[in-house]
Amino acid sequence: MHTLRVDLGERSYPIYIGRDLFATPELLAEQIQGSQVVLVSNEVVAPLYADKVRAALGERKLLSEVVLPDGEQHKTMAMMERIIDRAMADGHSRNTTFVALGGGVVGDMTGFAAACYQRGVDFVQLPTTLLAQVDSSVGGKTGVNHPLGKNMIGAFHQPRAVLIDTDTLQTLPTREFAAGLAEVLKYGLICDAQFYRWLVVNMPRLLARDEAALAEAIERSCASKAAVVAADEREGGVRAILNLGHTFGHAIENHQGYGQWLHGEAVAAGMVMAARMSAARGWLSEEEVQGLVDLQRSMELPVEPPPEMSLADFQTLMARDKKVIDGRLRLVLLREIGSAVIVDDASEDELQKLIAPG
Amino acid sequence: MHTLRVDLGERSYPIYIGRDLFATPELLAEQIQGSQVVLVSNEVVAPLYADKVRAALGERKLLSEVVLPDGEQHKTMAMMERIIDRAMADGHSRNTTFVALGGGVVGDMTGFAAACYQRGVDFVQLPTTLLAQVDSSVGGKTGVNHPLGKNMIGAFHQPRAVLIDTDTLQTLPTREFAAGLAEVLKYGLICDAQFYRWLVVNMPRLLARDEAALAEAIERSCASKAAVVAADEREGGVRAILNLGHTFGHAIENHQGYGQWLHGEAVAAGMVMAARMSAARGWLSEEEVQGLVDLQRSMELPVEPPPEMSLADFQTLMARDKKVIDGRLRLVLLREIGSAVIVDDASEDELQKLIAPG
Repeated sequence: MHTLRVDLGERSYPIYIGRDLFATPELLAEQIQGSQVVLVSNEVVAPLYADKVRAALGERKLLSEVVLPDGEQHKTMAMMERIIDRAMADGHSRNTTFVALGGGVVGDMTGFAAACYQRGVDFVQLPTTLLAQVDSSVGGKTGVNHPLGKNMIGAFHQPRAVLIDTDTLQTLPTREFAAGLAEVLKYGLICDAQFYRWLVVNMPRLLARDEAALAEAIERSCASKAAVVAADEREGGVRAILNLGHTFGHAIENHQGYGQWLHGEAVAAGMVMAARMSAARGWLSEEEVQGLVDLQRSMELPVEPPPEMSLADFQTLMARDKKVIDGRLRLVLLREIGSAVIVDDASEDELQKLIAPG
Repeated sequence: MHTLRVDLGERSYPIYIGRDLFATPELLAEQIQGSQVVLVSNEVVAPLYADKVRAALGERKLLSEVVLPDGEQHKTMAMMERIIDRAMADGHSRNTTFVALGGGVVGDMTGFAAACYQRGVDFVQLPTTLLAQVDSSVGGKTGVNHPLGKNMIGAFHQPRAVLIDTDTLQTLPTREFAAGLAEVLKYGLICDAQFYRWLVVNMPRLLARDEAALAEAIERSCASKAAVVAADEREGGVRAILNLGHTFGHAIENHQGYGQWLHGEAVAAGMVMAARMSAARGWLSEEEVQGLVDLQRSMELPVEPPPEMSLADFQTLMARDKKVIDGRLRLVLLREIGSAVIVDDASEDELQKLIAPG
């Protein structure tokens, strides 16, 4: 088992990474103060792991369970309220702990419910998808989607601990697994050129779900995320680089309807768009862009936006991005592989080229 | 104009108290960064003050307005979402400011919406009821009610500034005005015996809405609140004394249906209950309790719980209070006039005596 730490003063917390952690005696129980737990999962994950987690939680005075429908389209205020309704109905007090067992959708909603329940209770993340393990479970961003934009309602609320049981990746569907790898790739692109090269070499092992390679990739990704979050918890500055590909990606997800393209798939297409724009500015070579395209193709990830999306679609949807400040869209681009920059001067012309390239 | 400061490090903010502040040139405009404002009010307050506030805000690139229905029964997630829907529909970005013009319900909901919109935007409080001016607008507690309990969903989110225009009190209905005075009385009871004596003497002036007396009472109340909040922002300890009468009061409000008893009326009855329990423990004299009862009667405030509420009603409703920790109900009592204590050993017998006294 490896242990990392997210360094945020009194809100610091550990990330544990290893095999069969959900069944490691007392590890989970130790993360929970008090005798009350609300365990939140979804219809797909609960049948696989809820028994194990229930056993690992040990005896509790009050254990409530909420099983949500699966999928990004259910990441709504209504579902978040379902968690709160259950906690209220069962009489959970302010010293309860909400435990999120599932992917990013379950984690984000459970975290947001924990942030709001009685103005804030503890929560613990048990991420079961690669995407949640390397990205959404770490850093305290919680929230739900609004019909007009992704993650538009939420809170910064740090978990007490993150337990990453890498065995869960063996049951993850191929498409979700690849979508998670897109976020792994992101860390190489934005801040770790050496890791990016390692990923190019080791992608076949990762795609074969080699345990050692996965543990290495998760640990390096979480270490990058923890460092960025520690430097800028509430995204006043550098944390925004974690959004490489996300402004384009959010527009794609919103246009297609949440749940049609997976988040990681939309981000993958968005990262290629950001790479192309970076190349057009002379920051990346055409070969580097092609290398990224080839790598993502080998991962069966998209490398283009949906053909039916127009420039106007992107403009309208991106204008609602949280990174818009005083009407100026801010985009994360790559100064080189391993180094991200934030620009606010992207022109319509540059954007047009990404959407109808050539 | 008087200025107080709530001292919370980087979240510190000013409270301005004075006559006709909404029309004081530039005071409001100065509190708002950026060019976007969402002005939230209700059906009763908007017709009285929205024009003035709109003028004081000055030219804005984007000004949206939300007018909510009036009353505690509308302090719901659905109404909070209405504020967010408007902000989203009109394209407000993360650097918008939500301005709350109204009483505690408008302030709490607007603050909670501001806490959650894009994971947190600025907000400014323009409290127009006495209750909001001396209590809810200061201290950063925001939230909405759940069908099973008051203020059960919310966030700690400090305003950027609080502007208390004491002229608004001249239009306040008698019942609401008296309910606000209940919270003023609370500060004397929990932490300022001298102020309590001042209130006994000056109550006729306050009831006649004498400007100078009102300004004095508001300033002393806000100063007490600011000191308690600065010592304990997230209610880990001493801040809980601000809840004198509130645990009983919340049970009354919930039992009667939100909006039937005003919050301050329920708190008033709850304060007498707390005083009686304190007297039964030998901490207050019977004369002191009677003095409080007489004073509240002169203010036309309730001094008893609703006769139809049983011991079981109180027990069930108070068990859901946020101050319950590991099954133990915590109550704020008075060690003497001007000094509150928190107890967690109240017996059923003590409670029974309050509900069917004699």
